[in-house]
Amino acid sequence: MSLTTISLEPPFLLYLGDVADDDHAKTGYGLAYWRPERCAGQMRFPDCPVDLGLPEMNVAEAVKAGVNTAIVGVAPVGGQIPDHWLPHLIELAQAGIGIAAGMHSKLKTMPDLVAAAYKGGATLTDVRVPPANIPVGQGRPRSGKRVLTVGTDCAVGKKYTALALHRELEQRDMKTTFRATGQTGIMIAGEGIPIDAVVSDFVSGAAEILSPDNDDDHWDIIEGQGSLLNPSYSGVSLGLLHGSQPDAVILCHDAARTEILEVFGDYPIPELDEVIDDALRFARRTRPRCFCAGVSINTSSMTDFEREAYLGKMQDHLGIPCVDPVAMSMTPIANFLLKHVA
Amino acid sequence: MSLTTISLEPPFLLYLGDVADDDHAKTGYGLAYWRPERCAGQMRFPDCPVDLGLPEMNVAEAVKAGVNTAIVGVAPVGGQIPDHWLPHLIELAQAGIGIAAGMHSKLKTMPDLVAAAYKGGATLTDVRVPPANIPVGQGRPRSGKRVLTVGTDCAVGKKYTALALHRELEQRDMKTTFRATGQTGIMIAGEGIPIDAVVSDFVSGAAEILSPDNDDDHWDIIEGQGSLLNPSYSGVSLGLLHGSQPDAVILCHDAARTEILEVFGDYPIPELDEVIDDALRFARRTRPRCFCAGVSINTSSMTDFEREAYLGKMQDHLGIPCVDPVAMSMTPIANFLLKHVA
Repeated sequence: MSLTTISLEPPFLLYLGDVADDDHAKTGYGLAYWRPERCAGQMRFPDCPVDLGLPEMNVAEAVKAGVNTAIVGVAPVGGQIPDHWLPHLIELAQAGIGIAAGMHSKLKTMPDLVAAAYKGGATLTDVRVPPANIPVGQGRPRSGKRVLTVGTDCAVGKKYTALALHRELEQRDMKTTFRATGQTGIMIAGEGIPIDAVVSDFVSGAAEILSPDNDDDHWDIIEGQGSLLNPSYSGVSLGLLHGSQPDAVILCHDAARTEILEVFGDYPIPELDEVIDDALRFARRTRPRCFCAGVSINTSSMTDFEREAYLGKMQDHLGIPCVDPVAMSMTPIANFLLKHVA
Repeated sequence: MSLTTISLEPPFLLYLGDVADDDHAKTGYGLAYWRPERCAGQMRFPDCPVDLGLPEMNVAEAVKAGVNTAIVGVAPVGGQIPDHWLPHLIELAQAGIGIAAGMHSKLKTMPDLVAAAYKGGATLTDVRVPPANIPVGQGRPRSGKRVLTVGTDCAVGKKYTALALHRELEQRDMKTTFRATGQTGIMIAGEGIPIDAVVSDFVSGAAEILSPDNDDDHWDIIEGQGSLLNPSYSGVSLGLLHGSQPDAVILCHDAARTEILEVFGDYPIPELDEVIDDALRFARRTRPRCFCAGVSINTSSMTDFEREAYLGKMQDHLGIPCVDPVAMSMTPIANFLLKHVA
């Protein structure tokens, strides 16, 4: 059983269209941050509010810069590519630049784009395609160590936190693998399983094959998806949690977020200790010793002073490390994790 | 947005192959029980341990009896049709008898069967095909009343309980619709959404469109799937729970079941009050007033005396109606439900 593997030839042009805000440009931000050496530029509509800080390019400039792959750097709700972005993608493909995207709507099902890619000799890569023949979850305990990031909502830093912890363990010369479960993670890692594109009956089975048996001292750092609290995606999150059988979870949160985004209705985010209790209650169904190794919080809405006070108070209350992995580092969580998994 | 609708022409022949046990012949049992007037016979290998009590038929006898549709009456783990059943299905199709199945493996992708059906002028119907373009869950509260059956495991009577409650409300001349979420339910009702075949990102969205806004005095009785306790299918169950927004859940259980079936590892079934607490904890995320209207228990492993003692004790402990819907009726649960949903 193999994972979804992809091969994207750099340099990359990150295509942003007119994506509404940063939260929906996670793929662009993720690639620009974790694979900066591969990103040559960005392309977007003049009124696009998102700016990755990369050189602006049109198609001619991308060709001139030797761009090999244009990556659709956004993740809109429902995973569809807006119609008015298509002319840009067609122009890129006609110019011989490969296109990659990780949305539910597939590049290879768009006739005009397929024709343009054929004409231009460009490759179309759909990242959000799960491997075939995923089995039903077995529930069998596996060897090796696992950490899963869980969240209070979507877009609260689950991927970032997992990658940062993975890098932290790598720097300590430990055996570790980042296990990608979303489009951006897969583009960064080159492999993974787009867990939210898996047929629901097989979600926990997909999580099981994503992090198979391994050496006792090997750490899989698994990228979480969605949230048990998010009424749109909670099923994905629970299947991933049960299938991952994590030794530890790390809760990810955005300090400025008080309620679930992009739902209609009243979905407040509860106190974090309650969120952790619920996650562990379910996690322990497949991994009885599972604990929470820390809370990774986006505090970009705060001043340095506010951040210090907020995280200090939270850490005192919860009794586990609380960090902002961007403003600070994952070191306290990594230390706590390694100390408590014997 | 429409549901998956199917049209199966009776009379039916229920095909059982050599299915291992009753738990895996749920489709056969469901159709024989809820639609007996449509079931003319059964066909199976000589050593098949499951017997629906219908007249035995081979292909020639089925033709002679005027059978119009052979229904694969089983639901094996992973939803694949075993290779050695195929010759039977081919022979039936060649004889002009339509074939219907609801497994993940699709009849229409089996070349020999497709050829036989073409030759015989027979129709192939794959029931487990979700409608196209299911949206992401919205979380928006909906009008009308909803009940969802939840379970301590798979195959504990969630479909039976929902159908029995639906019939009970129909007999009271109430506005009510049975909402099917699995292959058997869809074959019985003629429509529904095979929720476990929906891509995981859209599970709660599928549950939302399955039971849309309705009259304030209309009751959707929604067939549950899997269990929050089952590490293989918990994601399906949570997505269905959040998307259904039930006013009430009914817990279904098999008194003889002490641990989750068909998993590898230690998965005991907790005390029922704990199971109810967990289900309500999550259900209230999308329907704050949700309560448990009763426990529907398969006590076929017990004598009448044992059943009475067990259910009485359970009812005293939980403070809600506890019934065996086969040995008794759903009336106590229906009464409790209607009294507590004003």
